Amino acid sequence: MTQVAAIIGGGVIGGGWAARFLLMGWDVRVFDPDPEAQRKIGEVIDNARRSLPGLSDVALPPEGTLQFHDTISDAVADATWIQESVPERLELKRKVFQTVQSHCAHDAVIGSSTSGFKPSQLQGCATRPDQIIVTHPFNPVYLLPLVELVGTSQNPDAFLDRAKAVLTGLGMYPLQVRAEIDAHIADRFLEAVWREALWLIKDGIATTQEIDDAIRYGFGLRWAQMGLFETYRIAGGEAGMRHFIEQFGPALAWPWTKLMDVPELTEDLIAQIAGQSDAQSGQYSIRDLERARDDNLVTILRGLKAQNWGAGALLNRHDAAVEGAIVLPDDLSHPIVTVKRAIPLDWTDYNGHMNEARYLQAFGDATDRMMILVGCDADYIAAGQSYFTAETHIRHLGEAKAGAVIRITTQVLQGQGKKMHLFHQMFAGDQLIATGEHMMIHVSLQTRRACLPSTSLAQTLGRIAAAHAALPRPAGVGKAVGVKG
Amino acid sequence: MTQVAAIIGGGVIGGGWAARFLLMGWDVRVFDPDPEAQRKIGEVIDNARRSLPGLSDVALPPEGTLQFHDTISDAVADATWIQESVPERLELKRKVFQTVQSHCAHDAVIGSSTSGFKPSQLQGCATRPDQIIVTHPFNPVYLLPLVELVGTSQNPDAFLDRAKAVLTGLGMYPLQVRAEIDAHIADRFLEAVWREALWLIKDGIATTQEIDDAIRYGFGLRWAQMGLFETYRIAGGEAGMRHFIEQFGPALAWPWTKLMDVPELTEDLIAQIAGQSDAQSGQYSIRDLERARDDNLVTILRGLKAQNWGAGALLNRHDAAVEGAIVLPDDLSHPIVTVKRAIPLDWTDYNGHMNEARYLQAFGDATDRMMILVGCDADYIAAGQSYFTAETHIRHLGEAKAGAVIRITTQVLQGQGKKMHLFHQMFAGDQLIATGEHMMIHVSLQTRRACLPSTSLAQTLGRIAAAHAALPRPAGVGKAVGVKG
Repeated sequence: MTQVAAIIGGGVIGGGWAARFLLMGWDVRVFDPDPEAQRKIGEVIDNARRSLPGLSDVALPPEGTLQFHDTISDAVADATWIQESVPERLELKRKVFQTVQSHCAHDAVIGSSTSGFKPSQLQGCATRPDQIIVTHPFNPVYLLPLVELVGTSQNPDAFLDRAKAVLTGLGMYPLQVRAEIDAHIADRFLEAVWREALWLIKDGIATTQEIDDAIRYGFGLRWAQMGLFETYRIAGGEAGMRHFIEQFGPALAWPWTKLMDVPELTEDLIAQIAGQSDAQSGQYSIRDLERARDDNLVTILRGLKAQNWGAGALLNRHDAAVEGAIVLPDDLSHPIVTVKRAIPLDWTDYNGHMNEARYLQAFGDATDRMMILVGCDADYIAAGQSYFTAETHIRHLGEAKAGAVIRITTQVLQGQGKKMHLFHQMFAGDQLIATGEHMMIHVSLQTRRACLPSTSLAQTLGRIAAAHAALPRPAGVGKAVGVKG
Repeated sequence: MTQVAAIIGGGVIGGGWAARFLLMGWDVRVFDPDPEAQRKIGEVIDNARRSLPGLSDVALPPEGTLQFHDTISDAVADATWIQESVPERLELKRKVFQTVQSHCAHDAVIGSSTSGFKPSQLQGCATRPDQIIVTHPFNPVYLLPLVELVGTSQNPDAFLDRAKAVLTGLGMYPLQVRAEIDAHIADRFLEAVWREALWLIKDGIATTQEIDDAIRYGFGLRWAQMGLFETYRIAGGEAGMRHFIEQFGPALAWPWTKLMDVPELTEDLIAQIAGQSDAQSGQYSIRDLERARDDNLVTILRGLKAQNWGAGALLNRHDAAVEGAIVLPDDLSHPIVTVKRAIPLDWTDYNGHMNEARYLQAFGDATDRMMILVGCDADYIAAGQSYFTAETHIRHLGEAKAGAVIRITTQVLQGQGKKMHLFHQMFAGDQLIATGEHMMIHVSLQTRRACLPSTSLAQTLGRIAAAHAALPRPAGVGKAVGVKG
């Protein structure tokens, strides 16, 4: 039977919870007195619908149903999970819990999204304190897996285990906090950084933009994959975590931040940290960790390149500067070099070589370059016309591994009317490792149907096709799968 | 003419600089008295060679030459850039600068990798203080773009501009710090977080593993792309940055961290931050920023899935739990459903639909699933045999946009000897949007040559092929590009 979640308090956080439950197949019942609640939560759910399902490599269960209720009692009646995300005022939260507990099942989980309060504060004057825990998520709730789960001795272990199982089922990572403190764990770091940032701005050292750049072009990229200690373990090198701590210990006494209430770095504390780090990462050598870090950084940076954002936008600008202007060669008596690049770390697969989809990505880049050379550039596309691929035939003749430099040459087999028929050859050194034959059709982006290209494009393409007609017909052209070339 | 960089002090940081200069086409001359320097720097350069060139979508210039020198004077003689990365002892650094300046060109840039010292401290007793600046990079230097550039009034503007141009040419982002302070900008945050982390461990609230998880499953993913203020601007929503600061201002007085030396949140400071945030991100609406953030998060998370690391490993475990056991259906009288998924945000391109390479990625996933179903799973591959794709023919019959659910069915056309000939059909709803015909060859991963599969695999594949032989031959099989199906 479909499970029911009650969302008490919408907004960005409550809406994010609603979206996650809904897209994971739960029925969701919302109580929020804000007359705009339905619109606001709807917007968050729209964002989630466009991003979460495709994040998964399998189909998610069918979406649950979403209902809005005028009373808390209606919203929580059939719920096995009740998530409270009302404003951060303790008295308000306690009042909400009183009402919730008058109407909800006694074995339902009541999770609070509070970022600051301890669960004992929330349980304070509750009818059934054992039912209330902190489940603190991070925005956007529908994409970030972290949820801090904090209970007290009032909450039975079996109850906490059940709560963790539900959160895991939602695709989240419940981090159970060992002892309750103000602001749990993650927000303590956020608060420390926030305080330091306020000092930097107040003292005129940096602007908000400069602070963000200092994060997203540097350690932010490290923290997306390894966090603080695993990163420092690598920095410590073969000498290990103890060495790292001892080396940086003295800085605790220095004004490297304005936040000077520091713990004493005793031998016990050093041993504790080094031991925990061994337990966490000791199964990897430093060399393993370095390579995992670099693989992760390359895949993150290349993803940001594709989005042309942050560090990825920087890298795209650098590529453009390295390459210089893109111009059609004067001499058209040879196939045109359309790609020259090294194979990235994240293009290889379980067979240890470039994955087949990446061959087509590289051939697609070669096609994109041909499009630019004939005049189908970003402006042309923005004006409403482009080329779509109708058909592709790839032959694999050799292998290529990460780091190998590949070069693609492109021959225009036909360039007339709506058709641009291309033949790409991919070389690693002198070896031909693959061919790609592609039929491109010129289209209107409005009708999504074939149409004739601009006169100027047709002329340029025709000129190349005429020159390439003199070239020998390459082996493999016009062949079907399984027919010897 | 090839430019020359001198690296004074190897190790992880000096080696990272050497690697970046070298791979960007500079000649590199190293001085490091450590007898192990050549091996250590060599290891860093090896890491850089496997990761940096493929990060770029264009071919980098040919690698420069690497030389090791016994004296500083030889290393710096022809250098236009001298990078000092010796241990963090002021007297040692000053001594190195004395020697460097006795032998280097007067217009060379002398950059220090110091994370803590201010440039005025480094310039203190130098012969030519105008030539010395802080250029503080982040590990791994060959991948992370950030470098903090800090000068003093002694450094002419034209000199600083030239230094910035060189760093930009290396693919880095020089963040010029407005006023020198201990630890510059980024390390102040790292130090604040480090201090907070020490408290959490000392107080028994969290282990190193739990702290890293709190970072890499949560805000670390946000910071890889937007940093602190742009993220909070989104959290503030349409009400804006001022609203966000006013809302969280009171927490400064609360024990949300143990680092309590906080600045006063005056009206002036609030206005300053809100104004800077407008200047930084005001060109985007909150809705734009939310979508950019989600696009970036999806691409980062999917990259980490491909690496099966961190938040990506979590997501893979969730996918596996949603999907359950993978088993061959009993009824083989229909093509087998091998993929069912939503199209991720990062699979679309400038034409607004799924990019051609992603069609092959999805067909490749379908082929992978067929391999598992016939018995060519991870264990089989680890034992030394697999299938390679020899040939592929894709026909595009319709479009699909991000979020659309696609389904791929697979028919075995031939499954005999070394060959597995597959025909995939991709549907969006009821519409056939693409077909993929693939010739797979069974290979030995040792010889990289064709060989017969195991008896068990051959039997399973044969059984499917026999059942599928009764199915009608799909339209489009055995066709060449441009030949009507």
